[in-house]
This record gives sequence, C-alpha cells and structure tokens, in this order.
Amino acid sequence: MKIYIHTKFQESIYQQFRDGLEPKYEVIFGDGEVSESLKEQFLTCDICYGNVPLDWLNTSSQLKWLQLNSTGLDPYQQLTEYQFQLTNLKGFFGQSVAETTLAGILAVYRRIDELTRLQTKNEWVGTPIRETLHLLHKAKVVILGSGAIGLKTKQLLSGFECKTTVLNSKTISQLADYLPTTDILIATLPETKETIGLINKTYLDMLKPSALFVNVGRGSAVDESALIEILKEEKILGAVLDVTEIEPLPTESPLWNLPNVLLTQHSSGGWAEESAEKVVFFLNNLAHFEKGEELVNNVDLVKGY
Amino acid sequence: MKIYIHTKFQESIYQQFRDGLEPKYEVIFGDGEVSESLKEQFLTCDICYGNVPLDWLNTSSQLKWLQLNSTGLDPYQQLTEYQFQLTNLKGFFGQSVAETTLAGILAVYRRIDELTRLQTKNEWVGTPIRETLHLLHKAKVVILGSGAIGLKTKQLLSGFECKTTVLNSKTISQLADYLPTTDILIATLPETKETIGLINKTYLDMLKPSALFVNVGRGSAVDESALIEILKEEKILGAVLDVTEIEPLPTESPLWNLPNVLLTQHSSGGWAEESAEKVVFFLNNLAHFEKGEELVNNVDLVKGY
Repeated sequence: MKIYIHTKFQESIYQQFRDGLEPKYEVIFGDGEVSESLKEQFLTCDICYGNVPLDWLNTSSQLKWLQLNSTGLDPYQQLTEYQFQLTNLKGFFGQSVAETTLAGILAVYRRIDELTRLQTKNEWVGTPIRETLHLLHKAKVVILGSGAIGLKTKQLLSGFECKTTVLNSKTISQLADYLPTTDILIATLPETKETIGLINKTYLDMLKPSALFVNVGRGSAVDESALIEILKEEKILGAVLDVTEIEPLPTESPLWNLPNVLLTQHSSGGWAEESAEKVVFFLNNLAHFEKGEELVNNVDLVKGY
Repeated sequence: MKIYIHTKFQESIYQQFRDGLEPKYEVIFGDGEVSESLKEQFLTCDICYGNVPLDWLNTSSQLKWLQLNSTGLDPYQQLTEYQFQLTNLKGFFGQSVAETTLAGILAVYRRIDELTRLQTKNEWVGTPIRETLHLLHKAKVVILGSGAIGLKTKQLLSGFECKTTVLNSKTISQLADYLPTTDILIATLPETKETIGLINKTYLDMLKPSALFVNVGRGSAVDESALIEILKEEKILGAVLDVTEIEPLPTESPLWNLPNVLLTQHSSGGWAEESAEKVVFFLNNLAHFEKGEELVNNVDLVKGY
C-alpha cells in the first residue's frame, strides 16, 4: 500500500509519519511541490494526506482515501464524481481558533494593541488609558455558526459570564432581532452558498456604537467594503479579523491602518503542536481505514460538509 | 455634615456625587490638589473620599470615616493611632484585573503583540507565525493570592480547562513543589511584609523554559533584577507585567525593549465605568454609615488588611 504525503512539513514531522507507519506502507513525501513526475507518483498511491491539486484527483483511479489538511473543502466541491473516501480536519482547529478569538476580543477591550505600540516607544501612559478600557464581563455575544469553533468560543466565554447566543443555519433568520443589543458579533462561518455575503451592510448598520465585530470563519461571509466604511466612520468600536476577502491581505487595503482593527493574519488555527497532532489524527484514521471502519470526519461533497 | 472628595475625577463624576448626596451634606471637591488651604478645609470634614496625604490624617480630629480610592493601604500602614473608620476598595478591581491577566496571557500565547507590530508595518506573515503560537487549553496555572483578583482569574480560566492552583499565605510554602511543572505563574499579591521580594531568584530559576510569568499584584513581590536576567537569557517564555518596582517605569528600564515582555502599565484595574462605580460604592457605604451599620471593606491597619 502506498501513501502520498502532499503537505509540506518540517523533517521532524516526516519522521513522525515514518515512525508511525508499519513497514507494509510505502510512503512518498511530495513536500508541497506540484510537478508532472510527482503527479505520476501520486497516481500510484492508495491513500493521500494533503490538499493536492484538483486535476490530480480528476485523473486518479487508484486513490481510496484522501485526508485533507484543512477544514475547508474548496476547491473540492467542484468534484462531480469521485470514488475515494474524503475526510477533512473538521473540529481540529476549534480550540485554537476560539483562543485567538478571545485573545483578540480581550486585546481590544483591554487595549493590548495600544499598550504594545506604546511599549515600542518606551512611552508610559498609565492612568489615562484606564477609562478607555472595557470589560467582557456579562457582555451580550452572538456567535454565527455552531461548529467546533462556535461552541468552543462559547465555552471560553463562560467564565466571563457572557450572555452568549449561537445562531446556525436554522436560526440565522433571528439575527436582526439580536444585533441592536449585541456587544460582540463573532462570525465562525464556513464558506457555503448560504454564507457568502451573509453579513451585509444592512446587518452591519444595525450594530451599536460600542459593538465589536470578529471574523474567524471566512472573509467571504462579510461585505468587506461596508465593514471598512463603518470602521472608518467609527460607527462601531472595532473589528478583529483573522480572515479577509483576499489573503494575504493586499498592502493597499485600508484595513492595515485602521486603528480600530486588529488583524491576526489567518493565524488563529495554529499552535506549536499543530503539525504533530495532524499526524496523530491521520494515523488514528488510518487505523480505522485498515479495519474497514468508518473514518473520522467523512465528508459528503454533495451536502457540502 | 461635611464630605471632602480628594480624588480628581471628571466633572460628570462630581455631578454624580452631588446628585447622590442629600442636601444635608456639604461637599468639597479637592480635585486631587494638595495645599494648606485645602488641608484646612479637609480638617473641618467628617467624611473623606480619596487618598489624602498622610500628614493631613495625623492632624485631623474631626474625621469619622475615610474611604480610600484604592485597594492598597500604603502609606497608611504608618498610622499608629487613628480615631476614624477606614475602608478601602478591596475586591472592586477583581474582574478588571483578571480580564487584563487573561488578555495578557492570550496576547503572548496567540502572539497578539507581534501581530500588532506587523500590522503597523503593513506586513503579512501568515502561516509561519502559526507554529510559534501556544494554547492555554489545559495549562497548569499557579495563582499567588486568594483575594478577589486571584479567584476571578481562576474563574476566567475555567472555560480553558486549566489546572489551576491558588496559593495563599497559608499554603505558599508549597510553591517550590509546583514551579518545575507550572506553565503560568500569576502573582496577585498585595504589598505586605511577607510578600516583598517573595518571588526571588531561587523561585524564578525553577520555572521551565516554556513558562510565562504574570504580575498584576505589586511590583515589590518580585526580584526585578533576577526577572530581567532570566527574560534576557530567554530562560522562560516571557512575562506580562502590570506592575513594576518603580512606576511609572523609568525610560531606561530594560523591560521596555525585551521582546518577551508585555507591559500593561498598571492599567489592569481600569474600565470605562470605573469612576462611576466608585461613586456607587461610596454612596452605598454612606447609607451604612448613616445607619450606624458596619461599613463594607472595613480595614484594620494593625492586621494590615
């Protein structure tokens, strides 16, 4: 049996794959590269880890299982017919993304961004900054999306005694009722037909002046021009953005220099042990595969999740 | 009856005092100033809000109750004899300080400080920063001090499933047993004879390379030279310091420019409604005073708390 590891990792992670795989497996490391010769090797493999180019999949007949290196499914939704099992990393990033969500909210509320800038200048401000700080205590929070990120975020907020409402595709129609009293709106939405552009100007205009907007899902969920406008005009307190319409964020984007925006550069899913735990996840799923058991995080591309 | 308000507040807060006080009270606002004529006015007052100079108290015979504007008691521990009741703001800052504690920890773990610096330069780093991030999830935390700040911090950490140990004056002798496995050491200690210099070089040297040190109590609790040394040599992950030995922190302190230090400039006790809620606290205590009831946060200077 041959396994193709497409994702580029550090050498220590490749060694972790080797150590974890029985000798019966032949393993090929593509190191993130795309070439005709690598594609040919891929086409001889039974199992693949990583997000290979879409056209490799269209011509594969040997592949029995593809484990994605992501929660997101794009561009694989475009596959109309496929014979292999497909699994993703759904839930894998929940804790990490939720922690950056809390870090971002607290950074804005407790002015960590401003204190960092002052530190760069050896500038003591002390007491006057105190009256610009906010408390998360008992804040009214609306979380869009009831996946792992949404539910983990709700859990992290519990110690702060927040009044948290989680809206999913079934309850999203209630959003307008909540927005005028929402302190923090957190989008954790995946990209689907229904979520693209969901957070439009009408919704954004309903937020109160002290509201904070957080997006740790996909940039496509929000009308970015409308968001930039209300941030420029200081119609809301600010925004914490892990994701944007275009990534990397273009140098000319006004988001870089708005003082009420904190950009976390799509880092929220990461942590030091991220790669090592991906190997553990894969090897665990491989054990299920060997026994003919159902795989963890099986994806149905027709349903889209 | 005459009330002297020593603390400098905004005019809206003075108005809140006026609105909350019955006409039978004459109220004098000292606006934080110190002069002979203000001292004379103070000496005619029955009640005082705010931390007046120590020598004003030594000569007062009219004063029946002094409500401090702080939790800390210094320099009033030096009063050997006093006839008035003394109350402080113990517990008042618990939520606020605990929130900055979490904000600071998460800023270090999720690299919010570095992301802020990158944003200043319109510089996208993206994926490579991910492997430098840490999770607070299930971290081993030791909190020194079981007052309002310590207990609130423990509560805020609960959603992160941290293993939190709170040590107080009765259990502090166990500290050395915990340090080698501690991920985060949080000092929330008041300044007393017992706490000055408590966190010495011996203790600091027991911390592991991935450990984070947080001080939101008093700067005097830690041997600052020893702390600077281990931070310079990167023997621990970093430090979040709301307090330092000298405040404002002198421009020449190496703490300003250490990349593994986050300075929150003694802002942790603050929030937008801080002053307004102090007035509410005072007026509530005044109602107790009028009825001859026990005051909230009565301090015994002999005991020191």
